[in-house]
Amino acid sequence: MAALQPITPVILSGGAGTRLWPVSRGAHPKQFIALTDVRTMFELTLARIEGIDHATAPVIVGNAAHAALIHAQGRAGMTLILEPCARNTAPAIALAALALEAQDSAMLVMPSDHVVTDVAAFHAAIERARPLVAQGWLVTFGIEPDAPETGFGYIALGDELAEGVRQVARFVEKPDLARATAMLAQGGHVWNAGIFLFSAHAYLAALAEHQPAMLAAAQDAMARAERDGNTLRPAADAFAACPADSIDYAVMERAERVACVPVRMGWSDVGSWDALHTLAAKDAQNNAVQGAAHAIETRGCLIRSDGPHVTVVGAQDLIVIATADEILVLPRGRSQDVRKAVAALADRKD
Amino acid sequence: MAALQPITPVILSGGAGTRLWPVSRGAHPKQFIALTDVRTMFELTLARIEGIDHATAPVIVGNAAHAALIHAQGRAGMTLILEPCARNTAPAIALAALALEAQDSAMLVMPSDHVVTDVAAFHAAIERARPLVAQGWLVTFGIEPDAPETGFGYIALGDELAEGVRQVARFVEKPDLARATAMLAQGGHVWNAGIFLFSAHAYLAALAEHQPAMLAAAQDAMARAERDGNTLRPAADAFAACPADSIDYAVMERAERVACVPVRMGWSDVGSWDALHTLAAKDAQNNAVQGAAHAIETRGCLIRSDGPHVTVVGAQDLIVIATADEILVLPRGRSQDVRKAVAALADRKD
Repeated sequence: MAALQPITPVILSGGAGTRLWPVSRGAHPKQFIALTDVRTMFELTLARIEGIDHATAPVIVGNAAHAALIHAQGRAGMTLILEPCARNTAPAIALAALALEAQDSAMLVMPSDHVVTDVAAFHAAIERARPLVAQGWLVTFGIEPDAPETGFGYIALGDELAEGVRQVARFVEKPDLARATAMLAQGGHVWNAGIFLFSAHAYLAALAEHQPAMLAAAQDAMARAERDGNTLRPAADAFAACPADSIDYAVMERAERVACVPVRMGWSDVGSWDALHTLAAKDAQNNAVQGAAHAIETRGCLIRSDGPHVTVVGAQDLIVIATADEILVLPRGRSQDVRKAVAALADRKD
Repeated sequence: MAALQPITPVILSGGAGTRLWPVSRGAHPKQFIALTDVRTMFELTLARIEGIDHATAPVIVGNAAHAALIHAQGRAGMTLILEPCARNTAPAIALAALALEAQDSAMLVMPSDHVVTDVAAFHAAIERARPLVAQGWLVTFGIEPDAPETGFGYIALGDELAEGVRQVARFVEKPDLARATAMLAQGGHVWNAGIFLFSAHAYLAALAEHQPAMLAAAQDAMARAERDGNTLRPAADAFAACPADSIDYAVMERAERVACVPVRMGWSDVGSWDALHTLAAKDAQNNAVQGAAHAIETRGCLIRSDGPHVTVVGAQDLIVIATADEILVLPRGRSQDVRKAVAALADRKD
């Protein structure tokens, strides 16, 4: 029996997290903030890789503007690849794959701003994927849906490749509610959570086949990267010339040997203040109160302050989020409208 | 015909304005804040005395802790009496009466934190009161009620003494809603707004008869007052020994020659955030937005910030008040519950 291939966690930290404004900002986005725990989302992501069999130190691919945050919340031994500009996930993962090419790790690609409450289930799913990865499959982890969510892409599952591992029949764009409801009722569809496991070689081979320009630009950027200890700064001109695309569109939907491990692991992308209310610890009145805040005769509210003290009296089903310079108030259920507040803010500052 | 007795406005500025927390604070209470206008309530009160016939420079009776605020918002020529401690309105007015005893002014006593939108009506009411004041009557101005308010005392009107001037039949404590509704339906009752006109001699004579200890303490405090230009600081030990009571209880309910001029002059005591919403300029969606604040798809809200920028999205009938260190959120109609927030704040700081 062959030796177990080492797994290198590759944590993608380039997101901006605008849906959690005003706490999440460009200079200090969601993944670096403590939302569901005393630890930040990034710290929780690092904690989640503890205990994976044959795992190496992680590779972080992040925004160069966040280098100080990553160093502050990261750990010794990590490799840090600082993107000079944002080119979406496929090029970001390409940088990591090139850094890992020599050792041919299996790359466990994870966003840095998700929650997984059942880490044992996650680790078990990884172990189910491993034999397929050794055979060159690109594996994605699909979240068993429990609601007809319209904010996620879905994966239609095909034949069983091994116990708990299915071939991917196709990727489904974010559906409307009717389609989401139908998929939930039908079964055999899971949410695309952006978590992947594949060998660096397999990913680079898929890029060579489907995205040669992207691969060439990433190779050029890495060949001329500045190195400072474990920190790599890919060449800015080369990476700027790289086509921007998601791994889903650029690779997964085009490659042939794509598998999915369905998993139920208490996953959430914490994609809105409403989602945080659902996830957060709540009092007997269904209030989630975080930071310098106080609820009086109030029910069903999410109240959070990292700034001035907030007192909510006699309210129901509100979201109140305060920072030192911006305060957001909206009813629960309307947290998608945060974008309207952000747009109005941009207008104010024009 | 005797010469017209001069009128000296006496502005009482000792209030704490806790019902407008968190904007109104002990160190910077309501009367020194711009709420309904670009001018503060204190500045509006000073503006309201402009144009009164035969008026002298005003006397301000205020809290010694607010001396800097009064100087900043006051005007040249004013006399400032700084109370070393709070003893309610009857002793405060006694200090002013003693300061005006030599010239025997008619004292126009006014709180510093009310709104009057029809100043001409106020001035006309003063002119109606003047002949009675010259005859030694204590005159109060009663606000014609337009709602069964339970937050004010009422005055039951008796015989007509002159055109537009009625004898006071009796003072009525803050009523319950049934009683307030009955008084409104019955007519002949007005709100006690704490605005008075009487000669200094008449007030001091009433004190001598009904509150000799209060008068003696005030006389002692003023006899040993420190003077610095137009600023008087009554002796602290003497004033501390003065019985504390309101002019209504201590004098008006006991004196015999008490008259009332009913008046409709756009008066409000701006006694709550709900009252401010009623008074404030509003947009087409019935939102009053003051300071660093922004309403999106929102109706019927009062949103005010003197601190971080506030964005309210998709809300209805909320009060959102922000300062640099405290934020208050509550539904409209519940602004009396501000006291609960203040009590909780006191608990936090214990």
